[in-house]
Amino acid sequence: MREVFNFSAGPSMLPEEVLREVQADILSYGGSNMSVMEMSHRSKLYEEINAEAESLLRELMGISDNYDVIFVQGGASTQFEAVPLNLLKSGKADYIVTGNFAEKAYKEAQKFGDIAAAASSKDKNFTYIPKTDKNSFRNGIDYIHLTTNNTIFGSHTTMNNVPEADAPIVADASSNILGEVIDVNKFGVIYAGAQKNIGPAGVTVVIVRKDLQDKALPICPTMLKWSTQIKEKSLYNTPPCFSTYVAMLVFRWLKKLGGVGTIQKINELKARTLYDLIDNSSFYTNKTNPADRSIMNVPFQTPTPEFDAKFIEEAGKVGLKTLKGHRLVGGMRASIYNAVPLEGVQKLADFMKKFALQNK
Amino acid sequence: MREVFNFSAGPSMLPEEVLREVQADILSYGGSNMSVMEMSHRSKLYEEINAEAESLLRELMGISDNYDVIFVQGGASTQFEAVPLNLLKSGKADYIVTGNFAEKAYKEAQKFGDIAAAASSKDKNFTYIPKTDKNSFRNGIDYIHLTTNNTIFGSHTTMNNVPEADAPIVADASSNILGEVIDVNKFGVIYAGAQKNIGPAGVTVVIVRKDLQDKALPICPTMLKWSTQIKEKSLYNTPPCFSTYVAMLVFRWLKKLGGVGTIQKINELKARTLYDLIDNSSFYTNKTNPADRSIMNVPFQTPTPEFDAKFIEEAGKVGLKTLKGHRLVGGMRASIYNAVPLEGVQKLADFMKKFALQNK
Repeated sequence: MREVFNFSAGPSMLPEEVLREVQADILSYGGSNMSVMEMSHRSKLYEEINAEAESLLRELMGISDNYDVIFVQGGASTQFEAVPLNLLKSGKADYIVTGNFAEKAYKEAQKFGDIAAAASSKDKNFTYIPKTDKNSFRNGIDYIHLTTNNTIFGSHTTMNNVPEADAPIVADASSNILGEVIDVNKFGVIYAGAQKNIGPAGVTVVIVRKDLQDKALPICPTMLKWSTQIKEKSLYNTPPCFSTYVAMLVFRWLKKLGGVGTIQKINELKARTLYDLIDNSSFYTNKTNPADRSIMNVPFQTPTPEFDAKFIEEAGKVGLKTLKGHRLVGGMRASIYNAVPLEGVQKLADFMKKFALQNK
Repeated sequence: MREVFNFSAGPSMLPEEVLREVQADILSYGGSNMSVMEMSHRSKLYEEINAEAESLLRELMGISDNYDVIFVQGGASTQFEAVPLNLLKSGKADYIVTGNFAEKAYKEAQKFGDIAAAASSKDKNFTYIPKTDKNSFRNGIDYIHLTTNNTIFGSHTTMNNVPEADAPIVADASSNILGEVIDVNKFGVIYAGAQKNIGPAGVTVVIVRKDLQDKALPICPTMLKWSTQIKEKSLYNTPPCFSTYVAMLVFRWLKKLGGVGTIQKINELKARTLYDLIDNSSFYTNKTNPADRSIMNVPFQTPTPEFDAKFIEEAGKVGLKTLKGHRLVGGMRASIYNAVPLEGVQKLADFMKKFALQNK
C-alpha cells in the first residue's frame, strides 16, 4: 500500500491496482511487445480497448441504446463551447449557474446565441443549489445546462433534484460521474473530464441522446462536432489512447468492486465521516447548505487563515496531500473521489480531530 | 532489448529507456508517492514538468523568444480548424495540397473564409511536392499553409524548399518535427501532433510567432484560441499531463543523444538503407519522386497485392510489425521515426532482401 493519500480536486488518485497493472504492461501490452502508447489506434488490440471502455461505461452507468458514447480530447472546458455549437439550432438556451465552471460554461455559450441564467447562486458565493421548476425556463429553448457537482464549492445537484422541463438537460458531470448513480435518461447530454473518477486527464466522455445529434451550427468545427466522433466510434483521428486505456482499467476495477451503486455507498460514508466531524466541531466549518453538500468535494475552514496554513503544512507531513482549498473559497478542500480509500478519509478525520484539539 | 520493431505511422515506437523510466515512476514520481497521472496540474512537480518540456523543445528546435510554445489537446486535426480561426483576419489564405492531411486542412479552412489551393500534387496521387514561388500565391492573404511531411504518401518538403513569400507560413509538421532540422524562423506557426516523434497521442505542440497572436476571428472558441493557452503557459485548463510528461522524457532522451542534427543523420541513414534497397531491386518499388522522398515514412510495394499481403504476414512473424500501407497507397509503409533504431531498419532490410529472393 502506498503511504500517501492525495485529496487533489483533479487530476486525482487512481486505484493502486490499476496503477500496478499499467506498470506491468508498460513495455508490452497483451503480449504484443508494444506499449499501449506505441500502438496504432487502428490496431485490433487498441480497437478492443476502445470498445471495452465504451461497453463498460455503458454497463456501469446504465446507458441505453438511445445514447451514443464518445471519448474525445479537450476537457470539459472544450465542451463548454461544443455544447452550444452542437445544440443551439434555434439560438436560445438557459443555464443554471451554481459554481465557477457552471459560470464559465454560461459565459462561453453567450458567444453563440441568446443565453440566459435561469437561476444562479452567485449571490451567496455558490453555497447552495437554487430551486428551479418548469416555470424557471424560457419557452423555445434548445437546452438547459447544469453542473451536477461543483468541485470548488462542494455542492451538488442531487439526482432527485434535476429540474422538470421540456427542453433537454445538458449536464457537466465531471466531478461526480461514476461517483453516484445518475439516471442518464433524465438527460439529453452528459459530459465529463476524466481526471476525477474516470482516469488520467486528456480524455473526456460525452454521452449524447440520438435525437440531439443533428442540431450543430454551420460554424461548428468538425473536431468539436459530436457526430464526427460518433460516426467513427471515437476513432475519427488519433485518440488519446493511453488515457482511454487507463480509463478502461478504472471501469474494470469499478465493475469488480460492485459498480456505481456500491461505490456511492462508500462515498457517502466517506463524506459523512468528514461532514459529521465538521458539524460536531466548533473548530471547523463548511459553508455549503447541508442539503446541497457534495459527496465528492468537502471544503472546510479552521477559525483563521493562519490555522488553515498550518493545517495544510502539517497534514502534508503525515502523507495527507493536496488539501489546499481553491482560492475562491480558501481554507481546505478534501476531494474524496472513488479512488480515495475509506482509510484515507479516516486518517484525515483522525488528523483533523487531533489538530483541532492541539490548536483550540 | 525488446524483440519487436514497430513501423506504425503513429502512434509509434517510443525509446525503450523512456518507457523504462515511465515504468519505474508509475506509482511515485520524484519521491512524491503519486503517479504523474494523479498529480494536480497546479502542483510544483507538474509545473516543473510542463516548464521543462517547453524549455527542452525550445532548445532542441532552436526556437527564439519571438515565438510562444504551447501544449494543447485535440491533435493536428483540431489545428486544421484552429489555424483559420486564429489567423483569418482578412479572410483569405492559400494552401499547398500535398497529401491526405494537407487536403483535410485545406477543406476545413474553407468553412471560415476564402481559401485557395496555390499548388497541389493530387493529379499524380501526391507522389511529388509541387514547386512554388512568390507568384504562386495571391495578394493580401493572411497565411500560406503547408505540410512538411506527408505520412501516407512518404513525401516531404525539404527545408531548403520552403516557399519564398510575404505571407507567414503555417506548417503542419506532425510527422517530421524533431526528425530533421527545421529552421523555425522561416515559419509563422508550426504545429504537430505528438504521436510520431514527440510522445504518446493526446498532446499537440503549437509554436506561434508573437505577431500572429491577435488575429483570431470573433467566433473562435476560447479553447481553440492559441492566446488562451499562451497566456496561461498551457495550464488554462487541465492539460494532458501524462502525455506531456512522456514528451518531456523523450526530449531529454533526444538531447542526450545529441539533438535534432544528430538524429537527422541517423534518420537519413535509415531512410537511405531502405530507398537504396528498393531502387536496386526489381522486386520493390516506391512511387514518390526521389527528390521529394520522406526520411520518416517509406512506402513500398512488391509486384502484386498477393505478395504484399504475404510480406506483411511473414514480417509480422519475425517481429517486424505494423508494416501495412495506408489504403490510399496500398502495399507496405515503414515509418522510421526517431525511436525506431537503426537495427530495426537493418532487420527490415535483411528481411526484404530475403523475401525478394524467395518470391521472385
